[in-house]
Amino acid sequence: MIEKLVQAIKDKGTCIVVGLDPQLSLVPESLKKAASEDRGDSLLAVSDSFLRFNLAIIDAVAELVPAVKLQIAMYERFGTPGLEAYRVTAGYARSKGLIVIGDVKRNDIGSSAEGYADGHLGRVRFGHTWLTGFDTDMCTVNPYLGSDGIEPFTKVCRENGRGIFVLVKTSNPSSGEFQDLKLASGEMLCERVAAKVSEWGSSLMHGKWSDVGAVVGATYPEFGQKMRQLMPHTFILVPGYGAQGGKGDDLIPLFDSEGEGVLVNSSRGIIGAWKQEEYKKYGEDHFDEAAREAVLSMKEDIDNALRKSGKM
Amino acid sequence: MIEKLVQAIKDKGTCIVVGLDPQLSLVPESLKKAASEDRGDSLLAVSDSFLRFNLAIIDAVAELVPAVKLQIAMYERFGTPGLEAYRVTAGYARSKGLIVIGDVKRNDIGSSAEGYADGHLGRVRFGHTWLTGFDTDMCTVNPYLGSDGIEPFTKVCRENGRGIFVLVKTSNPSSGEFQDLKLASGEMLCERVAAKVSEWGSSLMHGKWSDVGAVVGATYPEFGQKMRQLMPHTFILVPGYGAQGGKGDDLIPLFDSEGEGVLVNSSRGIIGAWKQEEYKKYGEDHFDEAAREAVLSMKEDIDNALRKSGKM
Repeated sequence: MIEKLVQAIKDKGTCIVVGLDPQLSLVPESLKKAASEDRGDSLLAVSDSFLRFNLAIIDAVAELVPAVKLQIAMYERFGTPGLEAYRVTAGYARSKGLIVIGDVKRNDIGSSAEGYADGHLGRVRFGHTWLTGFDTDMCTVNPYLGSDGIEPFTKVCRENGRGIFVLVKTSNPSSGEFQDLKLASGEMLCERVAAKVSEWGSSLMHGKWSDVGAVVGATYPEFGQKMRQLMPHTFILVPGYGAQGGKGDDLIPLFDSEGEGVLVNSSRGIIGAWKQEEYKKYGEDHFDEAAREAVLSMKEDIDNALRKSGKM
Repeated sequence: MIEKLVQAIKDKGTCIVVGLDPQLSLVPESLKKAASEDRGDSLLAVSDSFLRFNLAIIDAVAELVPAVKLQIAMYERFGTPGLEAYRVTAGYARSKGLIVIGDVKRNDIGSSAEGYADGHLGRVRFGHTWLTGFDTDMCTVNPYLGSDGIEPFTKVCRENGRGIFVLVKTSNPSSGEFQDLKLASGEMLCERVAAKVSEWGSSLMHGKWSDVGAVVGATYPEFGQKMRQLMPHTFILVPGYGAQGGKGDDLIPLFDSEGEGVLVNSSRGIIGAWKQEEYKKYGEDHFDEAAREAVLSMKEDIDNALRKSGKM
């Protein structure tokens, strides 16, 4: 999978990932009203309004970016109809040539982790038929349970040509509570996790990079250099840009010397652009064009930072 | 929620939780065949076969136990139809007076954790209507992101009378890889997490116990006493009994001096009893009776251990 991602980044000329994390407050009233008229005030109506929203955004950004990331919590909030919007959005994005990252942060003991790996990245057999659950290209995974919660995912990555990103240092304010704890050995917990991620990925290399990636938040730029050192062959998915406070310059230490190895996600900053002062001129009817404009502006910010650093 | 759980344990005279974690290999052929005839070899057929299986087990054990635990990965493997079986199973169990624990191990940054908390324990508003996603009583939560990934769950617990169990020391073989790491302060990571769980629960006390519980695996009995000490008011959900190797005697240190504060889960040992030599006489047609018998045998094991320890 990772070689496909690297190629897509080259083709599109940017490492931006659009986060399709719909919230009712970000979906224009007209879409909600139309869905409500069709379906009543039901979970199905929410699901419909998310689909109308997402598909328009995908159409607007598909030629600009290599990938989209879907925060499944935003769909799971609305039960199985919400998750059906997740599944259909993922399928539509893949049909447009985009790589789809399921931001699911799943993990469990081995036998249960197998269930998640099958459902999100793999396939299952019933009777004489192979079936797929959510069928995304890559997904995020939580490391707290250690290797035997990760192996079912790497197994499916190998068999089915998929990839994962393991949480190492997350973007939220309290991420340091456990992740930054100093171990008796002198390292921080997230550094130990980073070393493990590098080890887990060593048997899934394709050229320079591994199918096992990592998540490192843009909101902690001081961790960037160390993280890149500890995981020299690990692609890094970076949340926290934009609405959470991360900027282009903050990302630089995570790129390798050739300006590779990073995917930068922005969600609210792009899909909610139409609500921001800067993009107000588009109005709620043209939320998709506002999103497109926000992608271009983000690309400029990251390109400028890369050029300034000499990595581009 | 916790006071309801404590009362249910008293009423039923046991702290056993039946793990409704269906796998195709545990579902009798006759149920799969019937579902396949109705629905073809599809995800809907899997969902149907899981429902036929689960509802029969619930009918067989509802009068014996206070709660059931649903491992959502086993449903998520089969996409949205699988998750619909999860939702319907949860609703049926609640209608039979059982407390339903969603073993979802979710977590994320605050805004996304809100989505999970709403979907599993809370409710959402669309238009003029309040809607629920999965509507379970309690769920498991992963701590790796720290306090601001937990707060959305405790908020919903408070507002909606629900509860959570935070992963502290999991039952799997590699749980020690990160959870047992020694910190510079001298404690192990899981001990630090335990102390935090106790702190998070302090504002959600109902009598002796908090709505914020913990998960501690039965497979590491040497951790029991320390965990109980660090979390004196924390109800402990214990996986790993039975198929994973844990026995009644291993649980004793987790109970308080009055024999309270523990919920013990068994999944394969109960729902897959019909496939074990010991319960072979029931045959695949009476898998539900085999499950009932396995619950009674597990109750005897735990009661004996409690009596021997003087805690009962």
